[in-house]
Amino acid sequence: MKIIPLDAIQRVVTGPDAIDAVRKGYIAFSDGLIEQPDPLQILFKEADGSFFGDCHAKAAQGRGLPYFVIKVASGFYRNIEKRLLPNSGLVLVMSSETGHPVAVLQDDGWLTQMRTAAAGALAASIKPVLPTAALGVIGTGTQAFLQAQMITAFTGIKPVFVKGRGELESAAFAERLQTAGIDATPTTSAHEICDNAAIVVTATPSSEPVLMSDDVIGSIHIIAVGADSPGKLEIDPHLTARASLIATDSHVQCVHHGDFGAAVREGLLSEDADVSFCDVLAGKHPDLDFAGAEISMVDLTGVGVQDLAIASLVVNQLNV
Amino acid sequence: MKIIPLDAIQRVVTGPDAIDAVRKGYIAFSDGLIEQPDPLQILFKEADGSFFGDCHAKAAQGRGLPYFVIKVASGFYRNIEKRLLPNSGLVLVMSSETGHPVAVLQDDGWLTQMRTAAAGALAASIKPVLPTAALGVIGTGTQAFLQAQMITAFTGIKPVFVKGRGELESAAFAERLQTAGIDATPTTSAHEICDNAAIVVTATPSSEPVLMSDDVIGSIHIIAVGADSPGKLEIDPHLTARASLIATDSHVQCVHHGDFGAAVREGLLSEDADVSFCDVLAGKHPDLDFAGAEISMVDLTGVGVQDLAIASLVVNQLNV
Repeated sequence: MKIIPLDAIQRVVTGPDAIDAVRKGYIAFSDGLIEQPDPLQILFKEADGSFFGDCHAKAAQGRGLPYFVIKVASGFYRNIEKRLLPNSGLVLVMSSETGHPVAVLQDDGWLTQMRTAAAGALAASIKPVLPTAALGVIGTGTQAFLQAQMITAFTGIKPVFVKGRGELESAAFAERLQTAGIDATPTTSAHEICDNAAIVVTATPSSEPVLMSDDVIGSIHIIAVGADSPGKLEIDPHLTARASLIATDSHVQCVHHGDFGAAVREGLLSEDADVSFCDVLAGKHPDLDFAGAEISMVDLTGVGVQDLAIASLVVNQLNV
Repeated sequence: MKIIPLDAIQRVVTGPDAIDAVRKGYIAFSDGLIEQPDPLQILFKEADGSFFGDCHAKAAQGRGLPYFVIKVASGFYRNIEKRLLPNSGLVLVMSSETGHPVAVLQDDGWLTQMRTAAAGALAASIKPVLPTAALGVIGTGTQAFLQAQMITAFTGIKPVFVKGRGELESAAFAERLQTAGIDATPTTSAHEICDNAAIVVTATPSSEPVLMSDDVIGSIHIIAVGADSPGKLEIDPHLTARASLIATDSHVQCVHHGDFGAAVREGLLSEDADVSFCDVLAGKHPDLDFAGAEISMVDLTGVGVQDLAIASLVVNQLNV
């Protein structure tokens, strides 16, 4: 069994390659070639019942593929106070022939960040926008940064409007993006973001909506990334209910704990109001008019096929 | 993150320590101190739908414990034809405070074997038997060997009657046990085992019963270890239905894919016919008369608390 350290992983995974791998993975899943078991989810609660961390294992296998993958990723947001990274984890690559471990990708959660951002870029790409359109980013963490980077690079969208918890955070985040060559502007409200952007991505660990229905006057394509485990929520369920098109990466997960599910549980949407994001990418819904939709949404909770896709990219690049 | 190789793990885990750790873990679980999420289960099927392997991840955490554990174990039984070990895996130890990986126990599935055998020894210990009683073992693999070793050492039972797929396998297995100092005798049928033994343990990867109702004339305490994933079965459901006492390590898992569940699904037993094995070990069922029961059974499918218990033993012994 080989141990692949983070720097070796980062050397061989580029944004475009990650997006391409994840896109092909989603399409293979849509075509029935990949199996994903239900994830394992561990929630860490304070004595008062509030969440302070979560850890999940996601897996995927495909007939004829040499490897299957079990990915472990954790998010402990109090780590920031301790000056430790909130996200962590590793990816276990195993032989589909023998079940033996082949490699541990010691990625500290980086591959999860990359495959999640790749999904965001793909989610942005299904919304045709004008060449002058802007992107909105709510959140100021690693995932928000990667979403801004990958979406602008993949779609060609240039201006980015950002918003964090406070003005200081928003300004600092905009500066970080500017340093990375991205045309970023801090804003003071989600309303201001929606006034400026055609596409908005939410990438926070919030347990309360960061994007309210009142924030959205005109047209918007929402990419909801943060609510990936029970107890998290980013989008006002009343806003979700206004979306005429909703694509989910996993119907079951998004009903259970995604933003789509929050609207379903409040009785604002029927449980069958979504389509499969994988099917959309596979071209199986040519009738869906994302260009014309006033409000559309992609709800991403993260699925094993993304982990399989990006880990396979690493293994192939490194000839493990 | 430390990588702990198998030989270092094996140096610090003894049978008695494993049994003690697993016993305390079960009792802590019974007392509500441990949480176990639903396992992740990956099944590998041939084109005709038959299983050729499985891999699962099991996890457990406890409030106040420094670590939580995610254990990955696979069983690919065709490996034997390739002269490879059928079982494999590793144990991931993570910080309950930060979610960061602390250690990878590169155990190749050995800790899973040990904690499973420890459970068998505890399952045997709840059946009071005469000093002259014998143990029966059906199966000839690593787990069958460890069950014979741990049960005899822990309970003081001496004679062991064994049975494999054929006479050659039974004889070879008895010889292996004899070399390890165990008074083992090969038999030619499960019926012969049950005629001789007060306790029988089944530890095979079988998908069809290896112990039929007709095999049991007198009294027997059955420990069913092998049926740990869908598609596996060891005990004739009609025999399970004859048991007056059934303890399960996980009601949900044993209903879903254990031998208990096979009898429930055939309508031979009601779903509430079992008690918690953890509760039995915690002394919460002093009324249950295992000594007087004609037929009793412990159905073991394997739970995360066992993995947490044995991995914590390793981590503590090695001062990781």
